[in-house]
Amino acid sequence: MKLRCRSTLALLAIPGFAQADTLTATDTVWIAIAAALVFFMQAGFALLESGLSRAKNALNVVMKNYMDLCVGTLVFWAVGFGLMFGSNPSGWFGEDQFLLDQADHSTWAMLMFQIMFAATAATIASGAMAERTRYAGYLCGAILITGVIYPLYGSWAWNSNGWLAQLGFIDFAGSTVVHSIGGWCALAGIMVVGPRLGRFDKQGKPRAIPGHNLSYVALGGFILWFGWFGFNGGSTLSASVDIAKVNLNTQLAAAAGAVGSTLLRLMRRRAVLLTETVNGSLAGLVAVTAGCAVMSPAFAVLTGLIAGALAAGGARLLLALRLDDVVGAVPVHAFAGAWGTLAAGLFFEGDLFNPERITVQLLGIVVAFCWAFFTALIMYLGVAIFAGLRAPAIHEQRGLDLSEHDETGYPEFPQNSLYNAEMTSQAEARQ
Amino acid sequence: MKLRCRSTLALLAIPGFAQADTLTATDTVWIAIAAALVFFMQAGFALLESGLSRAKNALNVVMKNYMDLCVGTLVFWAVGFGLMFGSNPSGWFGEDQFLLDQADHSTWAMLMFQIMFAATAATIASGAMAERTRYAGYLCGAILITGVIYPLYGSWAWNSNGWLAQLGFIDFAGSTVVHSIGGWCALAGIMVVGPRLGRFDKQGKPRAIPGHNLSYVALGGFILWFGWFGFNGGSTLSASVDIAKVNLNTQLAAAAGAVGSTLLRLMRRRAVLLTETVNGSLAGLVAVTAGCAVMSPAFAVLTGLIAGALAAGGARLLLALRLDDVVGAVPVHAFAGAWGTLAAGLFFEGDLFNPERITVQLLGIVVAFCWAFFTALIMYLGVAIFAGLRAPAIHEQRGLDLSEHDETGYPEFPQNSLYNAEMTSQAEARQ
Amino acid sequence: MKLRCRSTLALLAIPGFAQADTLTATDTVWIAIAAALVFFMQAGFALLESGLSRAKNALNVVMKNYMDLCVGTLVFWAVGFGLMFGSNPSGWFGEDQFLLDQADHSTWAMLMFQIMFAATAATIASGAMAERTRYAGYLCGAILITGVIYPLYGSWAWNSNGWLAQLGFIDFAGSTVVHSIGGWCALAGIMVVGPRLGRFDKQGKPRAIPGHNLSYVALGGFILWFGWFGFNGGSTLSASVDIAKVNLNTQLAAAAGAVGSTLLRLMRRRAVLLTETVNGSLAGLVAVTAGCAVMSPAFAVLTGLIAGALAAGGARLLLALRLDDVVGAVPVHAFAGAWGTLAAGLFFEGDLFNPERITVQLLGIVVAFCWAFFTALIMYLGVAIFAGLRAPAIHEQRGLDLSEHDETGYPEFPQNSLYNAEMTSQAEARQ
Repeated sequence: MKLRCRSTLALLAIPGFAQADTLTATDTVWIAIAAALVFFMQAGFALLESGLSRAKNALNVVMKNYMDLCVGTLVFWAVGFGLMFGSNPSGWFGEDQFLLDQADHSTWAMLMFQIMFAATAATIASGAMAERTRYAGYLCGAILITGVIYPLYGSWAWNSNGWLAQLGFIDFAGSTVVHSIGGWCALAGIMVVGPRLGRFDKQGKPRAIPGHNLSYVALGGFILWFGWFGFNGGSTLSASVDIAKVNLNTQLAAAAGAVGSTLLRLMRRRAVLLTETVNGSLAGLVAVTAGCAVMSPAFAVLTGLIAGALAAGGARLLLALRLDDVVGAVPVHAFAGAWGTLAAGLFFEGDLFNPERITVQLLGIVVAFCWAFFTALIMYLGVAIFAGLRAPAIHEQRGLDLSEHDETGYPEFPQNSLYNAEMTSQAEARQ
Repeated sequence: MKLRCRSTLALLAIPGFAQADTLTATDTVWIAIAAALVFFMQAGFALLESGLSRAKNALNVVMKNYMDLCVGTLVFWAVGFGLMFGSNPSGWFGEDQFLLDQADHSTWAMLMFQIMFAATAATIASGAMAERTRYAGYLCGAILITGVIYPLYGSWAWNSNGWLAQLGFIDFAGSTVVHSIGGWCALAGIMVVGPRLGRFDKQGKPRAIPGHNLSYVALGGFILWFGWFGFNGGSTLSASVDIAKVNLNTQLAAAAGAVGSTLLRLMRRRAVLLTETVNGSLAGLVAVTAGCAVMSPAFAVLTGLIAGALAAGGARLLLALRLDDVVGAVPVHAFAGAWGTLAAGLFFEGDLFNPERITVQLLGIVVAFCWAFFTALIMYLGVAIFAGLRAPAIHEQRGLDLSEHDETGYPEFPQNSLYNAEMTSQAEARQ
Repeated sequence: MKLRCRSTLALLAIPGFAQADTLTATDTVWIAIAAALVFFMQAGFALLESGLSRAKNALNVVMKNYMDLCVGTLVFWAVGFGLMFGSNPSGWFGEDQFLLDQADHSTWAMLMFQIMFAATAATIASGAMAERTRYAGYLCGAILITGVIYPLYGSWAWNSNGWLAQLGFIDFAGSTVVHSIGGWCALAGIMVVGPRLGRFDKQGKPRAIPGHNLSYVALGGFILWFGWFGFNGGSTLSASVDIAKVNLNTQLAAAAGAVGSTLLRLMRRRAVLLTETVNGSLAGLVAVTAGCAVMSPAFAVLTGLIAGALAAGGARLLLALRLDDVVGAVPVHAFAGAWGTLAAGLFFEGDLFNPERITVQLLGIVVAFCWAFFTALIMYLGVAIFAGLRAPAIHEQRGLDLSEHDETGYPEFPQNSLYNAEMTSQAEARQ
């Protein structure tokens, strides 16, 4: 199997697993490094999400990250990989390669790399739903995302026989396949689980609930950015001179994303927030993921700039809709991912603003929303009914660390309560 | 020198340094990256160990990690590398390559990579012995581990002329050579230094002493897991298509280790602890290290599952023996390392459960225990007598950060004392 | 363009961009990884600088790191890269390659890698000037460093037509080009902005202002060290067997730097500080950066040892001059960088202590100081007059996190004030 594809339109699509084992040692080295970098993004997610939660829930959200990675790894190996990359005669799902135990080197490399992607898609929801979601209920959702929701859409867009891939849908490293899918699941999750106690007052006006450690947020942002060089660069799926431009575009878009969110903030004459700056750069990264191999650097900068502003605006939209996304996962992953997938069509190098290509991109974006959002809505409703999704109010007030894990993150350091409505509404008034 | 070996039975054994300099640029790239990843594991150890200690000892344990790395690097360059990989006519120790200052590229690559391994072996004891061991005494131990205990066993198992290597002993990346050796040294260390003040009550019943920052523990776990892709993958010692399967097995076993420890916890109807979950995945990583190149993915999962449960059970065994291992280094590195070395024999692909191979594996495991444990016991007893190993009780109560380094980790944040026996025994009662 | 150079004397100098696109896929893989590692050093700087600041300024310094990276990336792409690596007929500055949007793979790889270096040079000043410098004023400085000061010196030393390169100036990976330049800018910055309130008493005696989280300092140190394997190793600019020796020397010098600063401390019969130990290893890394490709391991150890002691001594010199460098950026980057550049001449393998080579090295060191220090002095004075550099005293007392970003790093954790002169002078008395 040569992991390159028929065209730049579907670089990740793979022409079936029964072919020759043509991956070289150098390709393997690159895929192994890229996979390790994508793995490390889990630490970035954990820090970002924990830092934006209160101290009493710091461990619970990290444990969700840690365990959806572990469970997701085993589930994707058992089920997801076959559904996504197995032989796919119908164009709608793969039919073999489950519980792989015998394969060639190329397939092992592909499986190792794709496990990391599946874990990324699964973990996006954990931050949005933090501080009030039960551990067991959350993990049920993560199993279904890595086992069904993510791989099925993936089989349409990234399996070379997938119906979206056949139409020429471009999503080089997964703005839609990974990030929007994860983001739409997160949106469904926060709708089903509801906002945290005290997040909105009786008039529906939001109250700020500041995160307990913004240094973790910054470190999480750096780690995610670092890992993205494997996420995007590794999606060449081989050692290739194309990696240079892919990762250059990645760097430029991330920088532009932070600048975009800062400019929006300055235009509104407000202080520049660390949280928004970090999310701005992440939105730039999410957005350039689809098109980093097919656009020129100047357009990567433009894609990132718009994504950074979009994520900041999107976060305000969610608040207006009384949706409580603790970390901004929906604007960063779903909104910026959709924008980036469109941008890959708009700014396709050598063929800008081609209406046909834009139509296919829009189709992929809409299909991703319909599939992931509605399936996840049904899934989380089912979990809520049969397994329990929302933690009891008394647990939420005490903190999930103590009620779910019998541990506290910082047992020696006394903590202020952050429930005082007056204090939080003052903090809000400053913003 | 071609770093590949005569057979998969001793992939790391090196046929002498006088041979041709055949390492390619691609091999060098891979070894350089893998070495950097193994280096980064030091940060993981530091965070894990610091997070599981009290705030008053947070710096002291990090300083032990930092300095055993620095001193270990110089000692291994001066002495250890020659003992381990120099010409070894007797099969018992190397006789040249000390203080290397002129060599070919292949040897430089090997030295760089092996320095990182030696530092890993040395640092394992620091966490087990944390919070009551004197800084200078600890460093004496680290010097002897990197200069004598680790490289001598290494010369038996990984030097191609070593007597264990000649018998066909399999330890691909060092479940025994690195982790068990480090773990048995840690066991000797905690026996000589004794438990922390207040760790056991008068009846010998353990009291919980919770770590000061469990977010660091999780981050440390992520960093160690990340670094392990270099630890195991790099042990191919060349760019190779084998890396894919090695790192896939690494990922699967780590995930299974966390699941294994969680299942054991659920069977006991207790809350799932972050600390045990992280240690479960580390036990999975330690265990798969010996056999990741020679077993199929399904057996990697099984190896990890058992390792995770074993580490959790092993921690309880140590408590029953009134041994105070602050971070669980002995169960994670020594016990899971021994299990993984056995598993590499049991689950050898294409030749499962071969009694001859199992016998050799058991021999290597027992020899490692006898060599490392008893030598370290004598060594720490000697340090205790001649240099001082246990910190004075007044220093232990104030915290070693202040008494040994004149610094405190978090000078602006007031801290609760965690000496209150009632509080800790309540915490224990919950577990 | 083949990125290798005419001799080991100027490995980084590049013979013009109009040549053939000869970078291989393996070269690209290595440069992509090395660039990612250098990127990650930003997280190390952020943690080190934040940890050494007080909690009330923890975010502000991180935000400076985050944003100088983002702005620096765009500025270096727009202006700096062309000035540094464009066609350079005069030997004094490049004249094309601005706002690159069309180029070959080799140029993309070079641009991606060099962006990370420029961001490193820019961020060095942030730590030295922490806790009292305005955010906007700081960013003006960062823009001029990445757009003018750093790339112009770079065009003399690293552009193959540069006048220093033509003289045979050796600075393999940038002890001077990156670190000293950044360090001299930091020196100018702290002279213009002045010391923090309360840093010196009325007699000019320094009062200790301890950092708020020394665990971050240690983690920052580990991350920087980790990233340095890309910084130095990647400066081969191609996959090469030379990487092994380069990174071995990097490891040995870092270890020796920590040992050097510790020995100095022990000779003065003081407690071994974590902060000095970490800075010692960083000084070793900075110093070996110039000569890691041209010296033997024993001289790398010597270079590191001296650098570690020099950084510790240099920090005391700055205090005697009543200069307030919060993190020790000037001794670590400027002083150790100058020493390392000299050491690359002194210890040149096969031609030790060649007076001609030493003269050229001294010339490069002096030119770097004159160019960077005086230009930065004018620049920061201009910023102070026209945009404002020093935060108002009331903001400094409250902390810049609140006054500049409307956020606090640890809102749930009550903090002691660290303004009490008695407490800090007691702390000082202990040192």
